[in-house]
Amino acid sequence: MFRKEATCSQTNSSSFIPKNTNVRISLPAVCFVWQLAMIILFGFFIRYNAESDVHWKQENKNISRSDIENDFYFRYPSFQDVHVMIFVGFGFLMTFLKRYSFGAVGFNLLIAAFGLQWALLMQGWFHSLDPMDGKIKIGVESMINADFCVASCLIAYGAVLGKVSPVQLMVMTLFGVTLYAVEEYIILNLIHARDAGGSMVIHTFGAYYGLSISWMLYRPNLDKRLNGSVYHSDVFAMIGTLFLWMFWPSFNSAISYHGDGQHRAAINTYLSLAATVLTTVAISSLSQKAGKLDMVHIQNSTLAGGVAVGTAAEFMLMPYGSLIVGFCCGIISTLGYIYLTPFMEKYLKIQDTCGIHNLHAMPGVIGGIVGAITAAAASEGVYGKEGLKTVFDFTGKWENMLPTQQGGHQAAGLCVALCFGIGGGILVGCVLRLPIWGDAPDDHCFDDELYWEHSSYSGVRQSHPEPSWVISRYIQYIPTTIAY
Amino acid sequence: MFRKEATCSQTNSSSFIPKNTNVRISLPAVCFVWQLAMIILFGFFIRYNAESDVHWKQENKNISRSDIENDFYFRYPSFQDVHVMIFVGFGFLMTFLKRYSFGAVGFNLLIAAFGLQWALLMQGWFHSLDPMDGKIKIGVESMINADFCVASCLIAYGAVLGKVSPVQLMVMTLFGVTLYAVEEYIILNLIHARDAGGSMVIHTFGAYYGLSISWMLYRPNLDKRLNGSVYHSDVFAMIGTLFLWMFWPSFNSAISYHGDGQHRAAINTYLSLAATVLTTVAISSLSQKAGKLDMVHIQNSTLAGGVAVGTAAEFMLMPYGSLIVGFCCGIISTLGYIYLTPFMEKYLKIQDTCGIHNLHAMPGVIGGIVGAITAAAASEGVYGKEGLKTVFDFTGKWENMLPTQQGGHQAAGLCVALCFGIGGGILVGCVLRLPIWGDAPDDHCFDDELYWEHSSYSGVRQSHPEPSWVISRYIQYIPTTIAY
Amino acid sequence: MFRKEATCSQTNSSSFIPKNTNVRISLPAVCFVWQLAMIILFGFFIRYNAESDVHWKQENKNISRSDIENDFYFRYPSFQDVHVMIFVGFGFLMTFLKRYSFGAVGFNLLIAAFGLQWALLMQGWFHSLDPMDGKIKIGVESMINADFCVASCLIAYGAVLGKVSPVQLMVMTLFGVTLYAVEEYIILNLIHARDAGGSMVIHTFGAYYGLSISWMLYRPNLDKRLNGSVYHSDVFAMIGTLFLWMFWPSFNSAISYHGDGQHRAAINTYLSLAATVLTTVAISSLSQKAGKLDMVHIQNSTLAGGVAVGTAAEFMLMPYGSLIVGFCCGIISTLGYIYLTPFMEKYLKIQDTCGIHNLHAMPGVIGGIVGAITAAAASEGVYGKEGLKTVFDFTGKWENMLPTQQGGHQAAGLCVALCFGIGGGILVGCVLRLPIWGDAPDDHCFDDELYWEHSSYSGVRQSHPEPSWVISRYIQYIPTTIAY
Repeated sequence: MFRKEATCSQTNSSSFIPKNTNVRISLPAVCFVWQLAMIILFGFFIRYNAESDVHWKQENKNISRSDIENDFYFRYPSFQDVHVMIFVGFGFLMTFLKRYSFGAVGFNLLIAAFGLQWALLMQGWFHSLDPMDGKIKIGVESMINADFCVASCLIAYGAVLGKVSPVQLMVMTLFGVTLYAVEEYIILNLIHARDAGGSMVIHTFGAYYGLSISWMLYRPNLDKRLNGSVYHSDVFAMIGTLFLWMFWPSFNSAISYHGDGQHRAAINTYLSLAATVLTTVAISSLSQKAGKLDMVHIQNSTLAGGVAVGTAAEFMLMPYGSLIVGFCCGIISTLGYIYLTPFMEKYLKIQDTCGIHNLHAMPGVIGGIVGAITAAAASEGVYGKEGLKTVFDFTGKWENMLPTQQGGHQAAGLCVALCFGIGGGILVGCVLRLPIWGDAPDDHCFDDELYWEHSSYSGVRQSHPEPSWVISRYIQYIPTTIAY
Repeated sequence: MFRKEATCSQTNSSSFIPKNTNVRISLPAVCFVWQLAMIILFGFFIRYNAESDVHWKQENKNISRSDIENDFYFRYPSFQDVHVMIFVGFGFLMTFLKRYSFGAVGFNLLIAAFGLQWALLMQGWFHSLDPMDGKIKIGVESMINADFCVASCLIAYGAVLGKVSPVQLMVMTLFGVTLYAVEEYIILNLIHARDAGGSMVIHTFGAYYGLSISWMLYRPNLDKRLNGSVYHSDVFAMIGTLFLWMFWPSFNSAISYHGDGQHRAAINTYLSLAATVLTTVAISSLSQKAGKLDMVHIQNSTLAGGVAVGTAAEFMLMPYGSLIVGFCCGIISTLGYIYLTPFMEKYLKIQDTCGIHNLHAMPGVIGGIVGAITAAAASEGVYGKEGLKTVFDFTGKWENMLPTQQGGHQAAGLCVALCFGIGGGILVGCVLRLPIWGDAPDDHCFDDELYWEHSSYSGVRQSHPEPSWVISRYIQYIPTTIAY
Repeated sequence: MFRKEATCSQTNSSSFIPKNTNVRISLPAVCFVWQLAMIILFGFFIRYNAESDVHWKQENKNISRSDIENDFYFRYPSFQDVHVMIFVGFGFLMTFLKRYSFGAVGFNLLIAAFGLQWALLMQGWFHSLDPMDGKIKIGVESMINADFCVASCLIAYGAVLGKVSPVQLMVMTLFGVTLYAVEEYIILNLIHARDAGGSMVIHTFGAYYGLSISWMLYRPNLDKRLNGSVYHSDVFAMIGTLFLWMFWPSFNSAISYHGDGQHRAAINTYLSLAATVLTTVAISSLSQKAGKLDMVHIQNSTLAGGVAVGTAAEFMLMPYGSLIVGFCCGIISTLGYIYLTPFMEKYLKIQDTCGIHNLHAMPGVIGGIVGAITAAAASEGVYGKEGLKTVFDFTGKWENMLPTQQGGHQAAGLCVALCFGIGGGILVGCVLRLPIWGDAPDDHCFDDELYWEHSSYSGVRQSHPEPSWVISRYIQYIPTTIAY
């Protein structure tokens, strides 16, 4: 039934070959083959690390260390918060479209589940390969880092939401995770920049990766009738917003160093996010004739402060510093939604469904800059000699580094993230333009019908028509319930 | 468009000056100015405490203390649970109105984000001012306390939900936080009452503060057509209910003393809440002709046990004691919804949208009384000499205090909370009656249209009318989907 | 009003005595009496354990142990995650029915709140009775175990969702918890099988208990018009799915032994669940003509990996082992939804509303088998001598047990779980067939109207008809909003 519609509607659109959105071969094939590959690679490469291996407890007794000093107890609560952000936060934030909630939350789950496995391998090869036996040793910190890596791909998903097929998303994730691991290795290990909350590594990279792909996949005849929300879908999106907002302190502190590092990162993020809310509301209200608020701003711009404080979260940013960062980001992000998104679509040919440029790209860059400045301004007076060593990891071959140098390295890291995002996005965008991925025609974007069977209600209903007493009950309710 | 309607509709209402709900100047002004003030005050006053400062790790090495003994690891998981209660719990609990979900969850976020900053300052001046340098030192416990303080203002919001403008809410929060900090200082420090879960300090104060304001803002011609729920809005509200219900053990144990204190507070709250559910269901079912349950009771009264066990949660209340408290509160709270709310509206001129009198005021007072009795009945036989000292903090100038005296002090604390709530509410209510705040006319209450732009769907739809195949698909679904 | 309808509709159904769904006497009676019984039994039997008792801190000083070594800090974050799974996870997973969301989330809360109290008693008598004073000592681990016990009853609820009255659910829970406690004691203590995540004890038992009850309560004329979802109810169900999915690592690690035990259990579950998602998507897409996905599979089968890895989660299953388990379970569970559920209904007379056979029964049995094999294959080479002792608890009278023997014991445990589930379900099913419980007639199943008062909107609306401007606003929205 849908096929006929699709074909018809193509006649008045620009592309003359009707698009085939059937993914019955490609989607199962990709899922099966890649999952089998994961099993084989995990078999060859991945093992438990010392703290999750069965020998840990014995060692523990030998050195009379308490069980509570297992890294699990330092990081697992933060891991679970990050996990909620990835699956409920990102997933539900994207349910705002009136008919793409299944795709938002369902494909989010699919690509995150694949991405985290691939991330464990890619990040493992770069960061935690044991030279003794050539195996990657994983623990709770690896799981957090895998979730972080996946976050960058989910950010990218936000730019192309509703316009790509699940197979394209899988391809995007495969390349995205790969690029992320390389970029992360260069920024954190080679350049020795610090980025606890991933303003550069996660947000800047992920956002420009997604925007470049969206640019490559530009649809001049995109039908926007379904590119909007209804009342309840906006409330669903607020679930995503709030879980991101609340757990962002855990995100930025999850892989900070034990003790005051995690503590301070959580405080800074908590404050920055609070300030963002007020300036977002202010600008949103100012931008409308009657001072009304726009739900799009509340759903998205209120989060910008968490992004922008990511890099500097574990530094001595000071509570007022965090507030200032949040203050600025709320303004910039909301203005971005009002002026920049329409501009980018019209003149730059970048269609950004969720406005990730305003929520992740700009705040990510700001975060990188704030990080560079804060690092360059770090002094022994504030940090103490030992503090500088701990916070900026001035050990090993970086022992004699100065804070001002570190500031330069931070800035270099930001550039690498930008290059990888834009360059990688363009390359992957080329791949995704191949006509084999089953993406939607221009006039059927933002529609769950393409990839989701609605059997559970339409099928059942057709075979069992509603009895008359049910219909009469419906009619009784019409006036109250139609609108929302 | 709305203006005209508003003006028309005023003609048949009691007030003859049409109300101006435009907040385009006032709302951005309040947000900007107050946020700037926060930044300046934070710059002057707020610093990291010892456990979140960069010098902590160094000190740690000196005294060979493990990183895990940072207060962060004792309290951060509880903090995150409390944070979820504040933003998702309170926010979604109030989405039950059919057309005020944006206002519920959006304004909740706004005032909580402002309130927690102001609370850090106010509570800091009273509780954690460092005499050495005149700075307030914040850490994870300060963040929990700030969230607690905000909770009292969100409770008050429940009474006036749908009837006030966001600017009024900001004013209410500014004064509410200020009063809270003073009241808390008097109760906890001067009177030396104990109140781990805030039955008195948070719930009693917050509820009477809100009820008094609602009394001052009484609307004799309130139009109640929109003061009700639809099917899905009730399900959204259950998200709020459940997150409050589940995380209440963390709320009551978040600032208890380390070790058995937190452990016991969590157990007591867990049990009390379980008992409340059963008696709420019983009374709700009894109150209807066919034994059907009322969603309003399930959403609200099931939480009363958590409120009432707040003060005594860290005492040796005993598991059966917690069950008894929950048992009674489920009954009282549900009966309150059935009999007291209509009575208060009709005879006392108090319009209580969410029924906070039943969920917070009465259980809060019960909690205060239970706390007083439990404290007065504390004996060395049960607590041990050291236990009494730890639980009731009989140190310093309170060293020679007896449990019976402590009971008296607890009762005095309850009175202070009541006085501050009622007195403060009346004063703030006077301020909020000024005709400058942009509140809704009587016949447009409980309606998101006043303060929220529905551009995302109405705007888009108008410029892109639905294509015919979309409409035909809709019509096919009408019978199934209209009702819910 | 409803009564008349119910009576009418019975004329064309098979049973000739109109069913009375009035629970106004039975439901309050059950709730009150059982809650009173709980209070009395708690008074006699339940006390705080050493770690939640006020004397703990004093002891602590004596042996110079840190406060952080209280079991609370090892397990409370996991407890809260499990708590969310029980109330939000199971509750919202069942909201997928278009008109049974209140019943799903409301009755889930009711029976869980009752069940956990009864579980504390039943499990306490078997596991933590203090021989010194005959009291049950509870702490955070007891709360987790009580939640686990309740989970088995909520699984059983999934099979009969929409077809039973709340009174029947309470009876089902009373017997379910009792059977669970006995079964758990036999499996864990007498047979000495290990089952950290409860594949056998919780999932296999719970699922077969529910399926047997559903078989006993078979309704040949069940009206399935309401046994389906609408768009938004499917999105609500995804909230349940995701919170279960995300927190399953906490579920499987919550009661593992401290340190590497909890750490490893979390990693294994995390990986298994990720693999399940991919194979679920693959099979779901393969099963439809156009490769579309079915929301039912995504909501349920993606969780099968967490069930199946339960028993072996704390063993040295290896990361690739977890992936293999997840890989297989995604396939089996999805195929179950496609082929087995219709088959079971048609030929075995088992009506399984939520498909718990595919989500809990089959994966539970697989989990038991995986556990048996992994235990039998355990070697000193992998675990070390001490490791075997710790993981399999080869202490006391089990000191000389061999891993191969342990494998046999695991298999025996699985059989016990199956027997208790099926046998117990048949017995309880007989009890539930008595015509005194107020269950729904065949043509009013899956309908909230039977047990929930919709006063909040229908009542209010009737007395306050919508004003004309409101209706005109509705009509404007019809095309956009009807469908979803």
